[in-house]
Amino acid sequence: MDLNLNIGAFSMEHRTVPLDQSVLYDVLIVGGGPAAMTAAVYCMRKGVKTGFITKDIGGQVGETSGIENYLGYKYIEGHELVNKFSEQVKQFEIAFKEGATVTKIIQGNNKNVVLETGEKYVAKAVIIATGNRWKKLNVPGEDAHIGKGVAFCTICDAPFFVGKKVVVVGGGNSGVEGAIDLAKVAKEVTVVQFLEKLTADKILIDKLSKYANVTILYMHEVKEILGNGLVNEVVVVDRKTRKENTLKIDGIFIQIGLSPNSDMVKGVVDINERGEIAVDCACRTSAEGIFAAGDVTSVPYKQIIIAAGEGAKAALSACDYVLRK
Amino acid sequence: MDLNLNIGAFSMEHRTVPLDQSVLYDVLIVGGGPAAMTAAVYCMRKGVKTGFITKDIGGQVGETSGIENYLGYKYIEGHELVNKFSEQVKQFEIAFKEGATVTKIIQGNNKNVVLETGEKYVAKAVIIATGNRWKKLNVPGEDAHIGKGVAFCTICDAPFFVGKKVVVVGGGNSGVEGAIDLAKVAKEVTVVQFLEKLTADKILIDKLSKYANVTILYMHEVKEILGNGLVNEVVVVDRKTRKENTLKIDGIFIQIGLSPNSDMVKGVVDINERGEIAVDCACRTSAEGIFAAGDVTSVPYKQIIIAAGEGAKAALSACDYVLRK
Repeated sequence: MDLNLNIGAFSMEHRTVPLDQSVLYDVLIVGGGPAAMTAAVYCMRKGVKTGFITKDIGGQVGETSGIENYLGYKYIEGHELVNKFSEQVKQFEIAFKEGATVTKIIQGNNKNVVLETGEKYVAKAVIIATGNRWKKLNVPGEDAHIGKGVAFCTICDAPFFVGKKVVVVGGGNSGVEGAIDLAKVAKEVTVVQFLEKLTADKILIDKLSKYANVTILYMHEVKEILGNGLVNEVVVVDRKTRKENTLKIDGIFIQIGLSPNSDMVKGVVDINERGEIAVDCACRTSAEGIFAAGDVTSVPYKQIIIAAGEGAKAALSACDYVLRK
Repeated sequence: MDLNLNIGAFSMEHRTVPLDQSVLYDVLIVGGGPAAMTAAVYCMRKGVKTGFITKDIGGQVGETSGIENYLGYKYIEGHELVNKFSEQVKQFEIAFKEGATVTKIIQGNNKNVVLETGEKYVAKAVIIATGNRWKKLNVPGEDAHIGKGVAFCTICDAPFFVGKKVVVVGGGNSGVEGAIDLAKVAKEVTVVQFLEKLTADKILIDKLSKYANVTILYMHEVKEILGNGLVNEVVVVDRKTRKENTLKIDGIFIQIGLSPNSDMVKGVVDINERGEIAVDCACRTSAEGIFAAGDVTSVPYKQIIIAAGEGAKAALSACDYVLRK
């Protein structure tokens, strides 16, 4: 539209107001990543009374350095993208609370969102968009090198390792699929598997076996990640012999699973075997008026652009629900 | 990742190559909007042999002027966003064909994508992302004022009409829901309904009736839209008396339905009652190896950010399919 812009576009002014325990919100959004922030923009533009509760802003995106697969930006740093999302949310007079940990959602005609502190907020509909965490190895050098050679998302980061030497930790479906993606572009791929064999689907193991640049270390674990600004070595241990070996590498992908942040709705909505909130294609959970979006859900892939799209869907589904209630 | 960028980020150079009839592609993407372009970026970054066939680039986004609900941009013109998406696709050596109309997809172990000209292209998997069209009134002044007061998407554009006088054409669910959204912010809303009553769900009609600033003209149709750069009048006709009436307005939302561009897969995949390609939450159609994404599908809301997310899902599902084939 070329008409006048009534809702504060171009303004860097933050217009948020504090979240209020005495208000019945139409929609309360829990979480602070791309799904939550997109949901907030959609709810505010729909004109429903919206609250936003989060521990922090940005979720995992803020910890990502280079992003090349968010459409609209050929390349953007994670913190920059978070700032852009955040400015877009805070242009609205949205009821906002940061630094809050939600521990429980109580289902009912109206829903109670309960914080660690005991504070309760009330809404007709709730959107859970609390994301997940990649499981870490918890070894020395891991945290210090995240985004500097330690990576978790092969879909996102494999193209950064063209011609490089990489390690993939994990022999399940995501580890083996990641190793295949890396084998296409990297010079050498070493898969470090804790068990005696790979646990991925046979068809994936067969595919992986066709790449001559892949080595698999069975019954091995990672002891330490070393680097000098960027990762350059990993120390692996043979679990039978306890013999240590140091590999020269450029990167290490940790593919040992995800932990969805779904504890606050356990027992309230259906959770799948991976701990994710089960949602349908409109982001509805099994509980009426409780919606969920992004990485915390059963959505098939965990990507920023997908989470953003799911946030929009959850918002529109929640607005429809409130409208028809 | 802070490592070196191997895939041409920051380069404005276009690296596309012509689509080739003698090549078996892993994935062929049909369409040129946000879903198709996101799918292309994801497929290329996954390292699969990818082709892209489209009539034009941008789809309906290119016809949109101001966009305020694509996360990452508080405000962007449609053509600018299309350019950004397009640059992101064309940085890759993707096999590319523009100006092509696909008339048929032939299912088989490999899929044939057949053009109007008779040319055939072959792939292991196909992604259909051909979008849809809002149905138009086909009255004088309509085309000339699209984006200048003639609008189709109330979710997108209602906030531009704060304090304004608007007409909504159509009395089904989308018309009535749109009228409610507009009634919250606009000064006056007039619903022009072709039939003797609204056909929306009762609960929506009840909600609409609570707004004092809404007038409904039953058995009316639009004859002409007038303006001087921006829309300022609409001529409506009483279908019983044929009496004409001119309303002073700032905008008109046309809510008489959508036409999904799904003809090329009719008889090949399941199509729902709205003519949309039925997909599951991973963008799989009823036909093995044929995926679909965005506005042409049964995805519950038609939004740019949702289409982009669905494009990523379809790409990753298609890549998984090809990997496991």
